[in-house]
Amino acid sequence: MSSQTTGRFITIEGTEGVGKSTNIEFIEAFLKERGINLCLTREPGGTPLAEEIRELLLAPREETMCDDAEILLVFAARAQHINQVIRPKLEKGHWVLSDRFTDATFAYQGAGRGICWDRIQQLEAYVQGELRPNLTLLLDMPVELGMERAKLRSAPDRFEQEKQAFFEKVRQGYHHRMRAEPDRFALIDASQSLSNVQEQIAAALEKHLGLV
Amino acid sequence: MSSQTTGRFITIEGTEGVGKSTNIEFIEAFLKERGINLCLTREPGGTPLAEEIRELLLAPREETMCDDAEILLVFAARAQHINQVIRPKLEKGHWVLSDRFTDATFAYQGAGRGICWDRIQQLEAYVQGELRPNLTLLLDMPVELGMERAKLRSAPDRFEQEKQAFFEKVRQGYHHRMRAEPDRFALIDASQSLSNVQEQIAAALEKHLGLV
Repeated sequence: MSSQTTGRFITIEGTEGVGKSTNIEFIEAFLKERGINLCLTREPGGTPLAEEIRELLLAPREETMCDDAEILLVFAARAQHINQVIRPKLEKGHWVLSDRFTDATFAYQGAGRGICWDRIQQLEAYVQGELRPNLTLLLDMPVELGMERAKLRSAPDRFEQEKQAFFEKVRQGYHHRMRAEPDRFALIDASQSLSNVQEQIAAALEKHLGLV
Repeated sequence: MSSQTTGRFITIEGTEGVGKSTNIEFIEAFLKERGINLCLTREPGGTPLAEEIRELLLAPREETMCDDAEILLVFAARAQHINQVIRPKLEKGHWVLSDRFTDATFAYQGAGRGICWDRIQQLEAYVQGELRPNLTLLLDMPVELGMERAKLRSAPDRFEQEKQAFFEKVRQGYHHRMRAEPDRFALIDASQSLSNVQEQIAAALEKHLGLV
C-alpha cells in the first residue's frame, strides 16, 4: 500500500464458538463512535464471484478435491475479494474488517488439514504481494470451551472427539502464525466475560491503530 | 515423472479453425493401429469439478473477473485434472492426449489477453512441478485462413477484425512458447491438405515418441 493510504485493514480470526459475530458488532459500534465507518466483509467470499467459488469449495461431491485445487480455489476467491473490495476501499482511506482472511487458510487448510504451509505461503505472496492486515484480532479460548459455546458438543462421541483434535490443530496453527508476526496480532482471551473481552479488543484497537 | 513411467503425455494446440478435432481422431486411430490405447481429455475441464470451474470461467457476469482470479481458477482446474486423470494414467503407463493444456494459457490468457507471462510461469511450476507434455503438436496456419475455416468470418466487420488481431497475438504466443522449448514442440503446417497434415503428424509421433 502506498504511504497515502489512510485506511486500515483489520481481520478477526479464531476457532468455532469464540464469539466472532458478537465482537464484530462491538468493533463496528466502537469505531462508529469515533467517526469511522467500517466496511464489513468475510472470507471465503466477499464478492458474488468469490461466493460462487465458496459454494464450489463447500459443495459435497463424490470426486475428491485435491489439495492444490482446493488451495488455488481459496486464493482465486481471495484475489477477487482483494481486487474488488479490499484494495479499492483501503485506497479510498476506508477501514475494512474481514471475518477471516489468510491466517484462516494457514490454520484450517494448513495446520488442520495438513496442506503444506510452504505451498500456502507461496500463494499468499502471489496473490497479496505486500498486503497484510494492519491488525489481526485472534479470539482465543480452549477448544473444548469453544465447542461447548457453539453447542457443537452435547455428548462427546468419537466423531466429536475427532473434531476436537482437529480444532486443537487449528488453534495451534493460529498460535504459530501469531508467533511469526507478533506485531500484527492481538491475542484476545475470549474465555473471559464479554465485557472483559470487549475491553481487550478496545485496548488492541487503540494500541495497534493509534485510536484515542 | 519417475523413470518407471512408460506413458506418454501428448497435447494438441492451435488457434481457431486449425482442425484439432479431426486430427485428434486421426491420432487416436494411428496409435490404436500400433496397439496403444489413448486416454482423450481436454482443458479447461477433464473432471467433473474441473468442468464446474470451466463453467465459472465462461459464465457471463456483471462483475469483472480480475486477472489473478482467472488464472488461479484455470490452474485450480488444471491441478484437479492432473491429479485425478493425467498423472494416474501416466503412472499406469497409459498414453494421454489433451486437447489444449498450459501452452493455451500462455497463448490465450498471456499473449492474447495480456496477463503477465511470468505470473503464469509461477503457477505452472506450482501446479505441475516437472510435469510437461512429452510432445506438443502445434497446428499452425495463418489466422485469416483459420477464421475462414471456422466460418468465424462471413463479412469482416470491425468486431471480426479485432478478433483477428487477438488470434494473431495468440498465434505469436504459441510460437514464443515453441521457441523456448523446441524439443517438446512439433510445428504442423495445418494450411496444407488433410493428408499432408496427417503425414506431418505421423512423422512427429514417430520422431518424438520412438514409434515405428
